[in-house]
Amino acid sequence: MAHKTVCVFSGGMDSTTLLYHLLAEGDEVLAISFNYGQRHGKELEYAARTCEKLGVSHRITDISNINGLLQGNALTSGNIEVPEGHYQDVSMRLTVVPNRNMIMMSIAGGYAISQGYDRLAIAVHTGDHAIYPDCRPEFVTSFEKTIQAGNYDAISVYAPFISWTKTRIVQLGQKLGIDYERETWSCYRGEEDPCGKCGTCVERAEALAASKK
Amino acid sequence: MAHKTVCVFSGGMDSTTLLYHLLAEGDEVLAISFNYGQRHGKELEYAARTCEKLGVSHRITDISNINGLLQGNALTSGNIEVPEGHYQDVSMRLTVVPNRNMIMMSIAGGYAISQGYDRLAIAVHTGDHAIYPDCRPEFVTSFEKTIQAGNYDAISVYAPFISWTKTRIVQLGQKLGIDYERETWSCYRGEEDPCGKCGTCVERAEALAASKK
Repeated sequence: MAHKTVCVFSGGMDSTTLLYHLLAEGDEVLAISFNYGQRHGKELEYAARTCEKLGVSHRITDISNINGLLQGNALTSGNIEVPEGHYQDVSMRLTVVPNRNMIMMSIAGGYAISQGYDRLAIAVHTGDHAIYPDCRPEFVTSFEKTIQAGNYDAISVYAPFISWTKTRIVQLGQKLGIDYERETWSCYRGEEDPCGKCGTCVERAEALAASKK
Repeated sequence: MAHKTVCVFSGGMDSTTLLYHLLAEGDEVLAISFNYGQRHGKELEYAARTCEKLGVSHRITDISNINGLLQGNALTSGNIEVPEGHYQDVSMRLTVVPNRNMIMMSIAGGYAISQGYDRLAIAVHTGDHAIYPDCRPEFVTSFEKTIQAGNYDAISVYAPFISWTKTRIVQLGQKLGIDYERETWSCYRGEEDPCGKCGTCVERAEALAASKK
């Protein structure tokens, strides 16, 4: 049965694939993106463009005013260097924004409930697990229990890629016709061109290379 | 051992009592209030005044721009009448804002973690349980598991009034020296004077009367 699904949508590879996947499954979808003060605001431009192309309703919610919450993090603070290297290195912990997914999912979930949607979708995958605790299965399962305990309306959390590698996600996306180079943005630095060196650039290149094997 | 605690603080009777209680226990406390577009913005003035009096750091976080989330609710929409009657009546469901506590607690929790606090305090009590699922013990317990699963830093949730009646809260507050009439605001309508008829006015009057018995 098709769902009415709110998709947490950053405009990166994973959530773009999730959006295509939900539409392929026949869901009625609303995409919600968050401006949390990230340096790579370019993501949001890509997100808007993809939704327009796909005819998907899109909301950008600004949480950048949550004062002080996002200080001291390489993704949001201009004076902290974005680390280079592999996505799963310890140095990538500088890119952890405390409780980011819980905040975004709580808002998206509240929005979903208030608008009569029955599902909240999120594109977390195994590559996220090493560094981001709020992308792990135990977090997602516990989040679903919590939001169900806290509300009258039925709402489920759908994380179809949670045990997938990024390569597998990219392979699905290619089947669904996604042109990742043109349609998605990942680089944490958010300059004119991707830097090729930050964790998400490295991960992106690896997944694209592996998907061609 | 004293904690460093972030207190979700509305400026109403319950959370004012909680704030006094935390200080009496010796905690280092930061109070966080939310502007979620509530009609009764007066609450926030009372909250600020109490924090100033107590010398407690206070942040007001504006989440009123979370577009669409708060529509169709009597606490936030000028064209929906605030229901009269008892706090636990079914009519009070009009005052349920979907996922409100989860959103506020997620933001407050993220803020706590980012600033090195180890505890998040919330003033839910048994009188809230009938109408607000996000004030019930199963929600609070599940929330604590979720935020712990989603973050590296230790954080606990402290809800000391969760099995208390409002009368018991008021009795504690009176011992702690709170002058509820002057220091707290409850009315959902937020006009010059309390209306005396909405759920929270009725509940307030009952608790004050009962505490004198």
